[in-house]
Amino acid sequence: MSAPETDTPHCKVVLAGTIAKSLLAEVAEGLKQIERKPLLVGFLSSADPAARVYAEWTGKTCRENGFEFSLREVPRDDLEEALITVNTDRTVDGIIVYYPIFGNRQDQYLQQIVDVSKDVEGLSHRYIFNMYQNIRFLDSHNAKKSILPCTPLAVIKILEHLRVYNTILPYGNRLHGHTITVINRSEVVGRPLAALLANDGARVYSVDIGDVQQFHRGQGLKKKRHEVVEMPGWTLENCLPVSDVVISGVPGDSYKVPVHLLREGAVCINFSSERNFSPEVKEKASIYVPAIGKVTIVVLLRNLLVSPPIVLP
Amino acid sequence: MSAPETDTPHCKVVLAGTIAKSLLAEVAEGLKQIERKPLLVGFLSSADPAARVYAEWTGKTCRENGFEFSLREVPRDDLEEALITVNTDRTVDGIIVYYPIFGNRQDQYLQQIVDVSKDVEGLSHRYIFNMYQNIRFLDSHNAKKSILPCTPLAVIKILEHLRVYNTILPYGNRLHGHTITVINRSEVVGRPLAALLANDGARVYSVDIGDVQQFHRGQGLKKKRHEVVEMPGWTLENCLPVSDVVISGVPGDSYKVPVHLLREGAVCINFSSERNFSPEVKEKASIYVPAIGKVTIVVLLRNLLVSPPIVLP
Repeated sequence: MSAPETDTPHCKVVLAGTIAKSLLAEVAEGLKQIERKPLLVGFLSSADPAARVYAEWTGKTCRENGFEFSLREVPRDDLEEALITVNTDRTVDGIIVYYPIFGNRQDQYLQQIVDVSKDVEGLSHRYIFNMYQNIRFLDSHNAKKSILPCTPLAVIKILEHLRVYNTILPYGNRLHGHTITVINRSEVVGRPLAALLANDGARVYSVDIGDVQQFHRGQGLKKKRHEVVEMPGWTLENCLPVSDVVISGVPGDSYKVPVHLLREGAVCINFSSERNFSPEVKEKASIYVPAIGKVTIVVLLRNLLVSPPIVLP
Repeated sequence: MSAPETDTPHCKVVLAGTIAKSLLAEVAEGLKQIERKPLLVGFLSSADPAARVYAEWTGKTCRENGFEFSLREVPRDDLEEALITVNTDRTVDGIIVYYPIFGNRQDQYLQQIVDVSKDVEGLSHRYIFNMYQNIRFLDSHNAKKSILPCTPLAVIKILEHLRVYNTILPYGNRLHGHTITVINRSEVVGRPLAALLANDGARVYSVDIGDVQQFHRGQGLKKKRHEVVEMPGWTLENCLPVSDVVISGVPGDSYKVPVHLLREGAVCINFSSERNFSPEVKEKASIYVPAIGKVTIVVLLRNLLVSPPIVLP
């Protein structure tokens, strides 16, 4: 006897809150191994109301989960000095800075002021370089993990939760066999995410307004890190039908992924603050994750535990 | 007997070529102290024709002045690996990369790949950080100078040539007493230049489209580095009449500095590729430098000699 036919599509919608909960359990385990509450310091020098909301949300999540959080409001012209001071403050375990501040390249300059040992956002050049180069540890004894930027890492954690990462395969190759399309190639999320997924073994199509690039470690994953190949003439019409995972993060509320191009049973994840997938995605997808914000903030706490002074493996 | 009155204003126009010549003599002295020709490697991965022109111009200037230059054309997706390789090539003394390549933040990522010891453009975060923080040496023995970015340094060298830097004053304070307006606050030139001039003792008004900021080490230059103070409501009308030096670098050919606001006898320097001063500037200015490109390229050679493996003090 087979299952009855139905009009309701069999798409499993997985909410970020659910995934966050299982990650928080892991964070709680890590916390037990240390004797004090780790202190995260947030710097608010941004005039953007969204920055304040995010700061308050960080504070709430910290306090609810056994971390200390201290918010420091600093005029933007004093922020560089304030960061230099806190870099050497041994009572501080992690630093988060709420951007945008100047809204231009001065913000990228400021990102590099935060000391590597306290950078829980993973924005230091050393961390970003290691990420692109597929270097996973800071030291030659593989004792200190190189921190990954929060939003791309949140997507990785979601794919692990969804069992897209196959734990039968060796660590580092667990996406071997997957073809993933990442829509948006920003320096903040889209490009690092495509690189991370390709370094873990996937063939990734990185799609931006003007072009498509393939990130891949080559047949048999023989290369130790991904290479980038330009795909002239390619568009989503070429990428989506061959992708078993589609991850989209286009800002603004007008963009929608063309659902008719999706492969039947694809895993679809939206990391834009707007919904990049229309509700019809459930007709095609096997799994749909409509938002990731709650996972991102737990990943921040996880990075705080992983970062040098503390413990989590 | 006094000088006769005349209709021709007494403005001295100083061309970049003249200043470059005196700097080249200094570079030639430095070259004599080493036994081989320093090798500068240029990486061309840009589709911008201006990048190629600049690359060819670098090569010509190098060869005419006793340096080796090797131009390497590399597909942009292979540039990161090419830079990593050349970073450890002991036959290479300096690296220059011609931007724009991706034309977005990926270019800033690439700037940080060049090793500090071979970065003759002064774009490494460590150099930029030292510049803003007014830290002039890389080591505690004051043996290795921290490299300054070429275009801001070219302006400094011009101001030294013009005797705006007063060598009666101690090194580091030689602009004490000067008020300087810098028009444009880009991360590439305007902001670093304002910081450098203020760190050398000037009161600097940094003017951008939206606002004016004052960079200054305070009364009596008591602070070891400049502080930035926002000047709400200020415009060029407040800055120009009190500035004895006006430096402008607004891109595009439509912008003109309002000459009627200039202080009589001001020193005027244009670092835009377009002319930011109309010819009437000569009615007001004591000295006018219409362009700086030829100085910038000599500063690059100078940085190559100053950078770690070589000699110039």
